[in-house]
Formats: sequence, C-alpha cells, structure tokens
Amino acid sequence: MALLAIDLGGTKLAVGIVSETGNILSREAEALDGRSGKEVGQLILKHVRNNIGLNESINAIGVAVPGIYNSRQGTVWAPNIKGWEDYPLLAELKAEAGDIPIVIDSDRACYILGEVWHGNAKGCSDAIFISVGTGIGAGILIDGQVLRGALDIAGSIGWMVLQQPFQEKYISCGCFEYHASGEGIAKVAQEKLNSGTYKSSLSRSSPITAHDVFEAYTQQDQLGIEIVSECVIYWGMAVANLVSIFNPQKIIFGGGIFGPATPLIPAIRQEAAKWAQPISMKNVQLEASGLGSDVALYGAAYIAQKFITLKTGTDAL
Amino acid sequence: MALLAIDLGGTKLAVGIVSETGNILSREAEALDGRSGKEVGQLILKHVRNNIGLNESINAIGVAVPGIYNSRQGTVWAPNIKGWEDYPLLAELKAEAGDIPIVIDSDRACYILGEVWHGNAKGCSDAIFISVGTGIGAGILIDGQVLRGALDIAGSIGWMVLQQPFQEKYISCGCFEYHASGEGIAKVAQEKLNSGTYKSSLSRSSPITAHDVFEAYTQQDQLGIEIVSECVIYWGMAVANLVSIFNPQKIIFGGGIFGPATPLIPAIRQEAAKWAQPISMKNVQLEASGLGSDVALYGAAYIAQKFITLKTGTDAL
Repeated sequence: MALLAIDLGGTKLAVGIVSETGNILSREAEALDGRSGKEVGQLILKHVRNNIGLNESINAIGVAVPGIYNSRQGTVWAPNIKGWEDYPLLAELKAEAGDIPIVIDSDRACYILGEVWHGNAKGCSDAIFISVGTGIGAGILIDGQVLRGALDIAGSIGWMVLQQPFQEKYISCGCFEYHASGEGIAKVAQEKLNSGTYKSSLSRSSPITAHDVFEAYTQQDQLGIEIVSECVIYWGMAVANLVSIFNPQKIIFGGGIFGPATPLIPAIRQEAAKWAQPISMKNVQLEASGLGSDVALYGAAYIAQKFITLKTGTDAL
Repeated sequence: MALLAIDLGGTKLAVGIVSETGNILSREAEALDGRSGKEVGQLILKHVRNNIGLNESINAIGVAVPGIYNSRQGTVWAPNIKGWEDYPLLAELKAEAGDIPIVIDSDRACYILGEVWHGNAKGCSDAIFISVGTGIGAGILIDGQVLRGALDIAGSIGWMVLQQPFQEKYISCGCFEYHASGEGIAKVAQEKLNSGTYKSSLSRSSPITAHDVFEAYTQQDQLGIEIVSECVIYWGMAVANLVSIFNPQKIIFGGGIFGPATPLIPAIRQEAAKWAQPISMKNVQLEASGLGSDVALYGAAYIAQKFITLKTGTDAL
C-alpha cells in the first residue's frame, strides 16, 4: 500500500511515492520548461502512468496545485500556468488512473496539512503556514480544518494591507506581496538601484533576484541590509495580524525565501511582538518548515492517505 | 418555552425574554453604575432570579460577556469590568438557576451568531461581524462555526497593523483600535485639537466624544471631516485584510459607531476594493447590523436555544 504524491509548481513538477505512514520512498522531478495548457496535463499524466505501471501497490493519488482547486467542478485555476484558468485536471486524472481514488487540493492547504502530518505543526489544531516564494500565500488550519472561504480563496495574505498610502503597483499582487515576496524583493531592489542613490554589489546582477539580495545582505552590502530589514518589518507586521486575528498555536514559515530568511525568524518575532495582541503573541510559536521543499509532497500524500482512512475507517496516522 | 438572554456590557446589563423562534418578548436594562467584581455578579443574579421567578417557561439561559469566556473553567475575563480578570460566572449562575441550563460566550461570538440567526448574516456559513464601539473586535464565522483560536482570543482585530511606523500609543490597544474605535476617534480628535492647527467646533466639547466628532462631520466641520475620512481609510483597510484572509460571504458592521458611520459603508467598500484580493472583494457583501443594539441579546438567546436543540434533537430554527 502506497500513495502517489504530486506537487505541481509554477515551474516544476515533483512526484513521490509515499508510504501510508509518511515515508517518501522515491521521488522524481521534471521542469515544466515553458509548457502550458494541455502540455502540463500530459506531463502529469505521463508520471501518473509510469508510477502506476511500476508500482501496483499505489492505492490513492494526492495532487497539490499552485492555485485554487474548484472541488465542485474538479477544475484548477493556476495563475502561473498559461491555459490553466479552469483546467479539468480531475477528469483527466480519472481517465488515466482508473479506480485509484484521486484527491486534489491547493498547495496552501497541502503545506499546512503536510506540516501537521510530519512537520513542525504536528499535534496542532490551530496553525498557519506562511509561504514566501515568488508570491505569498497562507495555509490556515482552524480547529483541525483548513480555512477555505466562500469561494475557496481564503488565505490570500499577499493582499494584506500593511502600509498606507495605496500605490498603483499594488494592483496586480497586493501590498504585502509587493514588498516582501521573492518577486517583490527583486523588484524593490531594482527600484532602489534605479533611484541612483545606492552604491551596491547588486548593480552587477541583471536581472536582480531575491537570492542576489540575500547574498548581498550576507556580504553586509548596505542596500542588501536595507531591503532585508524592511522585509523583516513586513513579515513581522503580517505575523502580528495573523496572531491577533487567529490566536494560533504556531506559525510556520516556508517557501523558497525561508530558505535564506530562516535565521531572521527571531527578528520577525520581535517586530510582530510590538504590534500583536499580547496574550496571543506570547503563546504562539514561530518556526521554519520542518519539511522544506518536500512540504507539498507530504501534504499531497496526506490528503490521499486521509481519503483512504475515511473510506475504510482505519487510521494509519 | 422561552429563553433568558443576558447581554453584559462594560457599562450596562441588558436582559430579555426571547421565544425559541427569536422574538424578543420583553426586555429590560440596568446601568452598571460603577459596580465592580462581585457587585456585577450580584446584579446579574438579581435579574436571573426575578425573571425565573416571573416566568416558569424559561428553559435555558444564554449570556454574552464583554471579553473572553474560558469554557474549561467557567470563568470570564472582562477587561472593562474591575475585578473580572477571572470571574466565576458559571458557578454563580448555576447556584441561582438550578436545573436550567446556562450557556456563556463572548460578545463577539454572540454578535455574529445573532446576525446569522435573525440579522443580516442569515443563511451565511462564512461571515464576519466587525464591532466598532469603545473598542474594536470581530466575531468570525467559518463554515458555520465561530473562530475561537488556541486560547479563545481569536478575532482581536483591534490589534491589526495598518500603518507604519509603530508608535508607543498603540501598546495598550493596537493600531487599528487606536485610530478607528470610538475611544480612538475621541483621542485622535483631542490630539489634533491640541496641535493648535485646527479651528473647529470640537474645541467646545470637553471631553470630546466620538459622537461629537460625527456631529461635527455632519455640520461639515473641517476637523470632523478629516477624522471621519481617516477612519473610512482604516475601516476600508481592515475590511480588505479580512476579505483577503477569509474570503467571507458577508461583513457586517455593528457597535455604537455603526450607528452614525453606517452611511459610510459604500465609501469603506471603495477603500477596501483598492487593496483586497479582487475576486474575494467582488463577491463579499458589506452591510450594517440588522439587529442594532439588540444583536448580543439575539446571540445570547441563540446559544441558549442551540443548546436545547442539541440536547433534545429538535430544531426550532
């Protein structure tokens, strides 16, 4: 008995065979390489076909998608994959996988569920996974259930307001994401360089990436320090808001930026503590992901495992 | 069969007899008049005793408290009532009410549950009640359940960060509450007047109240207009954050300030729409409370009614 876990990202597909108790038995990854629409679907189906063919013990498939899963229609909206405005992923997978049950959910939901299953949110009923990668989003667990919202788009914390006044540049992504996501960090660095008031090693990078900014920060480059310090303030303010609103047991940081920003978590806590409801703040733990880049695979395996558990009445947790 | 609904506020006690279908059959109110600690408990017990004595059909008691109800201990933390840091309300009520079941919950929870039962959130599974009175708090309904948090202090949205930099004056109440609660509006008005740069009819009020500020706004006083316009921005930003995070069906405004701020709801929506996740924003409705100052009485009656329903398996809704 094993689970096939699929983590579809905006640029990469990761696939793992996971035991029902949560050991990743094998894994593979393939870049999307500019694929769009049906080509991405075909890539997923190829991996499903290969894995089912090789491994007869697979008894459920879990899929994490980079966007929103519409469970009523079985379709996916993935803003970073062209042609995936309303992609009929469930129907395609069913045609390929036959009787093997398929469970699909958003990457956000999979992040927090993965952490609850085998990461740093184990044992939590109320916890939040803040994902800071290209964009920013959150998987939010309330009393053991994932927060969905009326249209399944709850957790869009990249749109959080943390600073007046409104600026046109927030329109496409939101205030928090503009200032403190991977893409945001790169944009802010370029803006500051373009202003001509900084001498920085970052002027040698073109285009600048968030990775370059953290590298410059590590090298004590003044512009790198300034941008990262500003991010700590934004991340701290966002944590404060989530703590005051949700009173969670834990907040877990993940995504590509945590990563290099992980040593900043104590500074983020210090900033958050200035602003947040004091009792909730005192009682929340802030931690980095316990599962790193595997978190969505764990989450995808978990939703598949949970489906079997509910169906058969056994619990392999 | 009837419900005894009790709405304990920071300055006033309201008591109502409510039918199981949600008609308020009678109501009375008494000011706390500076009572503290056990005196407040005695006042509640007096009203319970009188009502039980007069009305043999009361089959459950619901109580809304202005703070946090610790359901494990049966105690109440009410920051605005002296001596109610950990008040044993459940034990006192049980001693008075005998076999009649008692249900206690926070005012925030009662607000949103009241609106779901008989107000403007009827039929909603995902809705938020923003209460703007002396302070600011929220009752948040997710998939039909009230958001509690790890320590029952979720919904403390008065602590929301909406504006950098941090200021010392936020320490005791939070950024949002400082700028846009009833007490905040009065404080901001006094600060602005003290700066000496304004000529305003508000200089005749001492101390200034939020009511005075809305009066000045109505009279087109420049300072009144400036303060109210700033509040609209803060309320709009707060709505934006709640919309992006929760993707709710409705946000309901209540408390003493909505009231006079109710006609500003379209302007608040306009501000929120600049910032919030656009799909969630498009799909949320913003409305004033349908129950006004009775909202906590309805909520208190509802939690009592729900208790009976669960116990007997009937549903009078």
